[in-house]
Amino acid sequence: MERLPAPFAEALDRRKARWESYGAARYLRLTDDFRGLPKGTVSWGGRLVPGYPHIGRIFRLEQGLAQQFANPFWVEEKVDGFNIRVFRSGNDILALSRGGYVCPFATDRVPDFIDPALFDAHPDLILCAELAGPDNPYTQGGPSFVVRDVELFVFDVGRVGASGFLPQEEKRVLCERFGVPEPRFFGRFEAGDWERVRDIAEALDAEGREGVVIKEDAPGGHRTKYVTAWSGVYDIAVRAADTVELPGDFFTGRILRMALYLDEVGREIDAELERELGRAFLQGLADSVQRFKQAGRVFHDFRCRFRKRENAQAFMEHLSSILGHTHVSQTRLELEEGYWVLEFEKEVPKLTGLLHQLFRGAAIVD
Amino acid sequence: MERLPAPFAEALDRRKARWESYGAARYLRLTDDFRGLPKGTVSWGGRLVPGYPHIGRIFRLEQGLAQQFANPFWVEEKVDGFNIRVFRSGNDILALSRGGYVCPFATDRVPDFIDPALFDAHPDLILCAELAGPDNPYTQGGPSFVVRDVELFVFDVGRVGASGFLPQEEKRVLCERFGVPEPRFFGRFEAGDWERVRDIAEALDAEGREGVVIKEDAPGGHRTKYVTAWSGVYDIAVRAADTVELPGDFFTGRILRMALYLDEVGREIDAELERELGRAFLQGLADSVQRFKQAGRVFHDFRCRFRKRENAQAFMEHLSSILGHTHVSQTRLELEEGYWVLEFEKEVPKLTGLLHQLFRGAAIVD
Repeated sequence: MERLPAPFAEALDRRKARWESYGAARYLRLTDDFRGLPKGTVSWGGRLVPGYPHIGRIFRLEQGLAQQFANPFWVEEKVDGFNIRVFRSGNDILALSRGGYVCPFATDRVPDFIDPALFDAHPDLILCAELAGPDNPYTQGGPSFVVRDVELFVFDVGRVGASGFLPQEEKRVLCERFGVPEPRFFGRFEAGDWERVRDIAEALDAEGREGVVIKEDAPGGHRTKYVTAWSGVYDIAVRAADTVELPGDFFTGRILRMALYLDEVGREIDAELERELGRAFLQGLADSVQRFKQAGRVFHDFRCRFRKRENAQAFMEHLSSILGHTHVSQTRLELEEGYWVLEFEKEVPKLTGLLHQLFRGAAIVD
Repeated sequence: MERLPAPFAEALDRRKARWESYGAARYLRLTDDFRGLPKGTVSWGGRLVPGYPHIGRIFRLEQGLAQQFANPFWVEEKVDGFNIRVFRSGNDILALSRGGYVCPFATDRVPDFIDPALFDAHPDLILCAELAGPDNPYTQGGPSFVVRDVELFVFDVGRVGASGFLPQEEKRVLCERFGVPEPRFFGRFEAGDWERVRDIAEALDAEGREGVVIKEDAPGGHRTKYVTAWSGVYDIAVRAADTVELPGDFFTGRILRMALYLDEVGREIDAELERELGRAFLQGLADSVQRFKQAGRVFHDFRCRFRKRENAQAFMEHLSSILGHTHVSQTRLELEEGYWVLEFEKEVPKLTGLLHQLFRGAAIVD
């Protein structure tokens, strides 16, 4: 029996941790925040791989930077992908999802981006990264600057067995030495420089980019994020079809963010932005209605590329076990330009159910 | 001690009814649906004034009419105002709000629209009506066809002591005889006529009107409602400032309605509609942000006109006791063209609180 790192024994007793499998390996995963460790923290062969912490969001730069940061901070680009943690176990390099599952997709693709020599030199590193691009199996869309497939962006580096991250400069030196891809980096500022940070946000907004992450330049430093008006429209467009699956404040919170952003940067609401926002809301649902009429259900199409066929199969099994087999359906798995291209459909079950009711003529009391 | 009509004794025991006061009168009000009677049902001097029933909404006309109506039905315009029930008590004509409070505003204004001879001839009638227009004290905005003050539209007539309503033709004869104002009336149809109902909805949509109520032509007949795409934009524009006070599905439900409406009438989503929808979302919140920056709080301005000064004062007391004194503030009460014009501000406390936090630089984890 392996020895469990704290607080997993207690978490198991209190049903805050679960055993999971990946191949022959068994590992423990925190299913909720527990004793200061985030949901998704993993015990792998008795070694602690901390979950990636929640990062708060400020809605006003001037007041938010002053309130959140007494020390100087680094500003880097926030990348819209899915959060993974990459670590080495024996001879394997594995990638955990935010929730703490080994992700067969990310695990398959990490070697495309990370030189294994990094882990030979530093076997206990954890690379915290965003895997982002149109060909990802979890989210619709992706950043405008990843035009095909996926790319990896390592934004933090930690160590197995410990919470916290390497200091920014140490992390950057390490990434440069081993050619580890990083997000765009804007420099080191202080709260009084908020107008410069605002100008960075405005430049990102104009390019259709999401925003910034702000990291205090101190051990265990505080972090926060700030996003552009464009990101509000984008999020809504990408998730509009999921409207009935998401908490309603997903949408209204984003509008409030946009209103506060436009006010702080001193921009008027223009007709183009209004139109983009309205379109973001309506088009996704209109498409879902068409899908429902044609197919009797609403689903999203996904496509992603694997190095190894067995990883694609393991991924489909993984997704089916998380979402339920009836909601995921593989449509293609073929070798193409050296990669196994997997295509599948993921049902949007609540919207399917609601449209089914409404198309049968149900009346809803609200 | 007055004798209580069923089920008020039990409702009191189970804390589903409360005693309220209006002047010297005391009355009982159901605070929840109870034993088949809707919330807002009142016991007035031992006489039962049933609450107005919940009416479901269909999202598809073709299937909805077929599913909901085996019998022919009447179609009339749905008016966007606030729901009242008007009845006589001794020499007084009183108006109850949907929730079952005597509303000093509606009670004050009913004589402008209803000939008391109606109640002399039929003392036990209950007029179910919408009081609608820009000068109402409860909701922002009002129907496009009421350009000033308020107007009354009686859409159902019931009787004290009984649930249900007069048959449509009996109601219309009564209203015509006593000059009682009614909503616009489109005629009697069957489910197979759904395309004619769709054309009515499209004509209403083009005029910026809300939609229709559909009433089965049978005793205790079933009712449902159906609204235009325009109504979605309007609701969102009017309520955007309340975004954090409302359940999130208030907004997303309306977008889904719009998408289904446009699909059923066979219209493409055009740039003008997209722009109006985006503007509806953004403008209200942008205005709220400006209000907050100027005044340190977000509030709505209301204005309404009373026949009697003491009713305006009673109304302010009524509103303050419902909403809390700190959230309502009178700014004007003056005689103007024979009416007492009351102006007041109603705070939007959750949005005020949230903006207060965000302008202090708080970070929110989502």
